Amino acid sequence: MSPALRAPQSELYRPIELTFTGTGVIPADRTPVTVYARHGASGAERVVPGFWDGGTAYRARFAPDLEGEWSWTSESTDAALSGRSGTFEVVRGGDHGPVRVAHRFHFAHADGTPFRPVGATAYNWLHQDEPLFSSTVDAIAEAGFNKFRFMVFPQGGGYIEHVPTLMPFEKTDGRWDVTKPVPEFFQRLDRAVEVLGERGIQADVLIYNAYDRGQFGLNELTEQEDAIYLRYLVARLAAHPHVWWSLCNEFDQLERPDDRWDRTGALLAEIDPHDHLRSIHNWIELYDNNQPWVTHASIQNGSVTTEFGRANLYRDVYGKPVVLDEIKYEGDIPDRWGHLDAEQLVHQFWIATVAGTYASHGESFATESGSLHMVEGGPLRGESPARLGFLRTVLEEIDGAGLDPIDKWDDPAYVAGIPRCLYVQYLGASAPATWDFRLPIGVPGERPEPGDRFQVDVIDTWNMTVTPVGRTFTLDDVQRNDAYDRASAPVELPEGEALALRITRIGG
Amino acid sequence: MSPALRAPQSELYRPIELTFTGTGVIPADRTPVTVYARHGASGAERVVPGFWDGGTAYRARFAPDLEGEWSWTSESTDAALSGRSGTFEVVRGGDHGPVRVAHRFHFAHADGTPFRPVGATAYNWLHQDEPLFSSTVDAIAEAGFNKFRFMVFPQGGGYIEHVPTLMPFEKTDGRWDVTKPVPEFFQRLDRAVEVLGERGIQADVLIYNAYDRGQFGLNELTEQEDAIYLRYLVARLAAHPHVWWSLCNEFDQLERPDDRWDRTGALLAEIDPHDHLRSIHNWIELYDNNQPWVTHASIQNGSVTTEFGRANLYRDVYGKPVVLDEIKYEGDIPDRWGHLDAEQLVHQFWIATVAGTYASHGESFATESGSLHMVEGGPLRGESPARLGFLRTVLEEIDGAGLDPIDKWDDPAYVAGIPRCLYVQYLGASAPATWDFRLPIGVPGERPEPGDRFQVDVIDTWNMTVTPVGRTFTLDDVQRNDAYDRASAPVELPEGEALALRITRIGG
Repeated sequence: MSPALRAPQSELYRPIELTFTGTGVIPADRTPVTVYARHGASGAERVVPGFWDGGTAYRARFAPDLEGEWSWTSESTDAALSGRSGTFEVVRGGDHGPVRVAHRFHFAHADGTPFRPVGATAYNWLHQDEPLFSSTVDAIAEAGFNKFRFMVFPQGGGYIEHVPTLMPFEKTDGRWDVTKPVPEFFQRLDRAVEVLGERGIQADVLIYNAYDRGQFGLNELTEQEDAIYLRYLVARLAAHPHVWWSLCNEFDQLERPDDRWDRTGALLAEIDPHDHLRSIHNWIELYDNNQPWVTHASIQNGSVTTEFGRANLYRDVYGKPVVLDEIKYEGDIPDRWGHLDAEQLVHQFWIATVAGTYASHGESFATESGSLHMVEGGPLRGESPARLGFLRTVLEEIDGAGLDPIDKWDDPAYVAGIPRCLYVQYLGASAPATWDFRLPIGVPGERPEPGDRFQVDVIDTWNMTVTPVGRTFTLDDVQRNDAYDRASAPVELPEGEALALRITRIGG
Repeated sequence: MSPALRAPQSELYRPIELTFTGTGVIPADRTPVTVYARHGASGAERVVPGFWDGGTAYRARFAPDLEGEWSWTSESTDAALSGRSGTFEVVRGGDHGPVRVAHRFHFAHADGTPFRPVGATAYNWLHQDEPLFSSTVDAIAEAGFNKFRFMVFPQGGGYIEHVPTLMPFEKTDGRWDVTKPVPEFFQRLDRAVEVLGERGIQADVLIYNAYDRGQFGLNELTEQEDAIYLRYLVARLAAHPHVWWSLCNEFDQLERPDDRWDRTGALLAEIDPHDHLRSIHNWIELYDNNQPWVTHASIQNGSVTTEFGRANLYRDVYGKPVVLDEIKYEGDIPDRWGHLDAEQLVHQFWIATVAGTYASHGESFATESGSLHMVEGGPLRGESPARLGFLRTVLEEIDGAGLDPIDKWDDPAYVAGIPRCLYVQYLGASAPATWDFRLPIGVPGERPEPGDRFQVDVIDTWNMTVTPVGRTFTLDDVQRNDAYDRASAPVELPEGEALALRITRIGG
């Protein structure tokens, strides 16, 4: 009956799990046990909902965000769960903590370490058997992806070759009973999230499902039922530092009024004690990402990264990070969303990058089973993942919050960067033979000065090389909107390759 | 002492002015007289604020929105203004009524007549002497513009060659006293608005001013003072059917927190009994146009109409009409916003059109006086106005709400229209020699069917001609995202011209 503290878990940002033995009665629409955790030195209090985990087992999970001594007490209407208490000592470990919004348009872990998402996708991964389940994680980790989108509920419809037997709820009178979660289902989900964390991958959890299409009926829950499930899910998963919440993929495939999503999103913001990132992903109609509960815009649009100068507009209107969680997929199926070649997809990622946004990958080669990687996972066969892993290394070398368009009013070269420090110009899928040194100047922003000195690296986005030009460039002509080194000879380039330039200030 | 009813003004949507004689005391921050107007047949009540107009004169203006008999009574803390009453009979006249949002992304008058804005701009026009004042109106009316942006407060800064002596308020202890409006100033404003209405031009009134730059100090009013002025302005102007409200041009040049604009915009929505269109125009930082008080997004961006596929993104995020009230100007000054050639500006208007948005014109040739047309007005000298008047006639021939992008997810041809009825494809600044009949298909939307028959007109956007192709096209291949007439020969085009195609269903 006494709560047990699993060891070793008392590291900063890492989940601590408290286990209780109760009566086994599952409260229908409230938290069976609540844990109040208090940080000794600061007096900060965190309130954590617990959850039923089968039989008479109840748990509460808490990820401490401060080092030092914490004490906790439990409260419940079930006397067996109430009035427990304990302490734990939190020390700094290797975890950087949950990812938060940083510098308005970017992301960083709670400890300040920047996080640059380069995401992967396999919606129905959770419901696959081995070896598919594990090979998926191996493949995306090895490719270098650091975020992964997957659904809690199983997918129905096309390309679905495997229907799970393990479902999230029991049925009462033939109808899903959200007051009776199936512990084995959610234990499997726990483990899936843990596995991603062990590989350094953020778990972008898709909470509701627009792809049920009546096959399972999990799309037919009422708003109240959705809320009960949401509270359960948050109680289970929120202590994992690497969880991101996405209410739904292609939310507008479900014919629900927007204000239902508004309320569900606001509820999520209210009940998550660990305040993870929150978004909702669209099909055709955009959600109002200006809603306060939305931390970043998660957007689908087939053409927003095919040309320069588009995705940046989403940043302007939302004033939040923009993650383009579907920009079509590398693959060979007839659907227009599923037959990009790798060169094109990599090209679009670089356009997203200099737009100051982030993108996610998906792969849609028809597999032996008749499914697609972006549905069920498995090994990756495309040529883009290695290049996207390379892009991630380039992004991680940025010394600063992230890349912002420098002159967002009208820069014909679409340069992003950090004013007067670092500039990245993507020259497109087929670079010219030479490049004349030129920087845009933002309004407002820190203006470069005559005499500022820069070095330039030529980044081959396809062949994955970074080649220093080996000369120093010095600004000798700074105008209102542009700055030049007129005296230097043009940079010779491998014409026709998909190149980016990284221009770093080294003095002046 | 008895209220006078100016005749003949009892036409639907036309302002009726009630004149009262009071004590001449101006209440500081409230309405000196309120008129309650009741429509006999429906019982509908409208509450209209009155205003002081100098000496002992007070007025209230009301534009009836229903035909038939109305009665009214007045209320005031000044006994001389209170308890008056009367009746008037409203008959249908020639006015279509105020412009409202229609079909989410477009505009129509209160009587349902579509309105397609093709706007002009001369910010400081109100403050010019004759003949400049009248020649401005003549020029924009003759060119065919139907909306005009101008500021109430005078402009300071560059290109200002004329400083008015007539100012909106008296000063008290050296500071503008918004409780003491200068009637002559606002009578001049009344007349300016009336003059535009007589020429069929919507008055897009810029209420506050980001271009004072301390020269007049009208940018230094407090939020409370701004509100007093706003109530006065609304009481004076709102009965004019053709008024649009714009809180500010380049609002973000004023260093004010966004929530001050939020409150001012919400106040405007609350106090305008005639519920005119409301917007706010940005410089670099976009306002949150998802705010409920905003009826349409009024946006500046230098690059959003230079290429296809951009301006439409603003529609998606706001779900409101988008009016691009600054896309750079036709002119010859060094500033990058002021030296487009006419071909480029017309090109950008057509890109805006097939993005399902509207744009506004401005002209920035340096004039003899050292000013610019977009500052002080006067005759137009550019080559774009005639082409924009032609664009307006094309827009006015649309039988429907307006043009919407058909496949907003990914249409490489950027076709806008009304599904299965009308399609407009702009082929860009330099058309190819031939065009193969092809229509995009929206998701969702009314799908064209095999056998649907269409006629095609070739619109020369520069030479201002509409030439029917003279053949009928019949869909013989309807796929998921595109529909074709494979059997017909390609349409021969005058290669290199700036052409649009208008594709109209005539049967099938």
